Amino acid sequence: MSLTNATPEAAAKAAKSASHILATLPASARNDALTAIHAALSDAKDEILHANARDLELARKAAADGQLKDSLVSRLDLGKKGKWEDMLKGILDVRDLPDPVGKITLRTRLDDGLLLERVTAPIGVLLIIFEARPEVIANIASLAIKSGNAAILKGGKESTESFVAISRTISAALAGTKVPNGAVQLVTTRDAIAGLLDQDRHIDLVIPRGSNELVRYIKTNTKIPVLGHADGICHSYLTADVDEKTAVDVVVDSKTSYPAACNSLETLLVQDKALNTVFPAVADALLAKGVELRCDGPSKAALSGKQGNIVDVKQEDYDTEHLSLTLSIKTVSSLEEAVEHINEHGSHHTDTILTSDKELAERFMDAVDSAGVYWNASSRFADGMRYGFGTEVGISTNKIHARGPVGLEGLMIYKYKIRGQGHVTSVYGEGEGQRRFKHETLRLEDGH
Amino acid sequence: MSLTNATPEAAAKAAKSASHILATLPASARNDALTAIHAALSDAKDEILHANARDLELARKAAADGQLKDSLVSRLDLGKKGKWEDMLKGILDVRDLPDPVGKITLRTRLDDGLLLERVTAPIGVLLIIFEARPEVIANIASLAIKSGNAAILKGGKESTESFVAISRTISAALAGTKVPNGAVQLVTTRDAIAGLLDQDRHIDLVIPRGSNELVRYIKTNTKIPVLGHADGICHSYLTADVDEKTAVDVVVDSKTSYPAACNSLETLLVQDKALNTVFPAVADALLAKGVELRCDGPSKAALSGKQGNIVDVKQEDYDTEHLSLTLSIKTVSSLEEAVEHINEHGSHHTDTILTSDKELAERFMDAVDSAGVYWNASSRFADGMRYGFGTEVGISTNKIHARGPVGLEGLMIYKYKIRGQGHVTSVYGEGEGQRRFKHETLRLEDGH
Repeated sequence: MSLTNATPEAAAKAAKSASHILATLPASARNDALTAIHAALSDAKDEILHANARDLELARKAAADGQLKDSLVSRLDLGKKGKWEDMLKGILDVRDLPDPVGKITLRTRLDDGLLLERVTAPIGVLLIIFEARPEVIANIASLAIKSGNAAILKGGKESTESFVAISRTISAALAGTKVPNGAVQLVTTRDAIAGLLDQDRHIDLVIPRGSNELVRYIKTNTKIPVLGHADGICHSYLTADVDEKTAVDVVVDSKTSYPAACNSLETLLVQDKALNTVFPAVADALLAKGVELRCDGPSKAALSGKQGNIVDVKQEDYDTEHLSLTLSIKTVSSLEEAVEHINEHGSHHTDTILTSDKELAERFMDAVDSAGVYWNASSRFADGMRYGFGTEVGISTNKIHARGPVGLEGLMIYKYKIRGQGHVTSVYGEGEGQRRFKHETLRLEDGH
Repeated sequence: MSLTNATPEAAAKAAKSASHILATLPASARNDALTAIHAALSDAKDEILHANARDLELARKAAADGQLKDSLVSRLDLGKKGKWEDMLKGILDVRDLPDPVGKITLRTRLDDGLLLERVTAPIGVLLIIFEARPEVIANIASLAIKSGNAAILKGGKESTESFVAISRTISAALAGTKVPNGAVQLVTTRDAIAGLLDQDRHIDLVIPRGSNELVRYIKTNTKIPVLGHADGICHSYLTADVDEKTAVDVVVDSKTSYPAACNSLETLLVQDKALNTVFPAVADALLAKGVELRCDGPSKAALSGKQGNIVDVKQEDYDTEHLSLTLSIKTVSSLEEAVEHINEHGSHHTDTILTSDKELAERFMDAVDSAGVYWNASSRFADGMRYGFGTEVGISTNKIHARGPVGLEGLMIYKYKIRGQGHVTSVYGEGEGQRRFKHETLRLEDGH
């Protein structure tokens, strides 16, 4: 890793060159680099936590002056219980994942002696732009090296001291490995983001890790593809024939287990028939957890006489990611109406149906155009760790490349290899005397 | 299909709504629509060819006045031998491909009774912008319907009459099927492109079919992801130890079988040791085919005394897609130098090595950062039909989503389905008394 004050173009070019070397390293060399980073960070714990303490001190002052949110200060703190250990463990977890590079995903015999193979390959150069959390640097450096991608990292200014300390440590560790110097670069130059977003010739993918505002800013200001989600307006469709405990458990978990998360519930769609059956129990459980219910007419009427925070919903609530203990509620008469509302007002993140009718659930999951469609399960399962991907690059609401929780696979593309024996195209065709392709699908485990 | 004069936003919104219906249709309904389109076009042959003749007449006049290229006129002509039949056959070929929708590509038991599935799904709304060839409309409409995507088609003005005639026919045919009216829309409004490129809320992918200039214009003017290639600067690395016949056959086919194609050879990298062994025979064969050889010093010296079109190369030739019988030639001393030149000057399309050394070939294929890397085979194999994909959406030099020749798979994304029994996230964790995920990988063919 190098800590660079180079121009954005020079940094991007250097990363591209390094990516070409990195892409040819065997898995053992990439894994050895992760072992070395882990050991070096373990040794440098005191130094890094001291640097982090200096960032924290400045941040606390800024927070006291009202210039910084308290939640941001908390995210900065590497000394928080378990955070340092989690960061170190994450490096070894990534190291121990299966090698994502060079997996054969298609094999076709085009003709005698002419074999086509599709093989997974790194994307090239990733630009990671992140806000406060300094542990992301170790996480992302590990993911990039594991997947054979070069990475340019640009962090928020509040954690500069921590970044520099972690970066120096990683840099020294990598110097003794086969990973080239330019493969992971930390850009500390202020205002470098605009310049980096212009480097579409050298940078292949931008991954923003931070607020929705950051993601939107980046999408608006670059030609480079962006992997990230815009919003998380998640819905649950509550039908009359669901088991009451299932409905209460899932809605409460979806809404209250971490209201600021993008996979939390924002809108509850209540089947009209459920208004006076299962809905009141769900509402009671939510009110007991301090949730504000923003109701339309029928749902408010169904709750008349209840104590708690029940107010009238406004139309714009249905297009709002509350990220707090606030829930928009709307009454619908049918699956079709629920699906239409979700496809129109949702953010295509994660939407759930609560029903004991399997056929209805399958229709819902086929018709809702979202990255995650769940039946009788909390929207908060939308997460790379929970899906078993071991680690998570982010959650994507893109419609191409990668959708939903993105693991290492989202950092890969493929290339086609053809091995021939002097084969030319001009002899193939539909005419007389011309050769036909065989297009014989081969098993992936066959030898060459 | 509807022929629309709607605003770009209204067209895009209608396509999005239609895409949600289309995505839920069974394969049989999508295939029936293709059968209906095929039958209707067969019946309307005379009417469509008459409309095409009117386009042709205007185009020939424009060509005579020097306002249009002759090659464009030729591409307009639907009456050319085999073109009509190929167009019709293409519809049935696409219909008979395996259904790309709803394929399960991952199954994990997260916990008892909690199943995760990844299932292929249509991307949503495609915007196809194409130039002169009117048969593309039938081709693309077929691909879109087969893959469950809605499509907005914007064609070049030279073929308006043909488009309108084909579009009316398809529209009438679809009216009797389950495919919704807005699923395929032909936009005939002049200057609608800019407006359509703004519809990133409703349109999920742009596919340009036409010149490099068109692709570049679109990439510069939209936030929607673009599937297309910028250039085809393909290389061949000629080593000294290759069999002479292999070298001659492959280089001649790569350069001369269709010089205007993006997968044609533009630069020959000659190993210095090959200059006086196999290179002269390759040069003779190229010169005999009328190829202009643009040589650096050493390669020119190796050809001294030969008759034919041999000139000095300029540095910018190495960054030029000639698309004609012109070949840039450069001498290199090693595999590393060849790879570095290709990664720096190439367009990451298709590059080949000519050698009998398997180990060298494998190193080349791993190190060259291109969609296609071939050993002893012509670069012109880079083609969806030749790869056995049945049809081709285009060739992509993107680094995400789809790379190289793109078949129906490139029009698909996936969604995650979870089927639970009231499962919530708050009970899982590493602490005492908390549940652990099972993350058990299931075979794809297992029942639920």
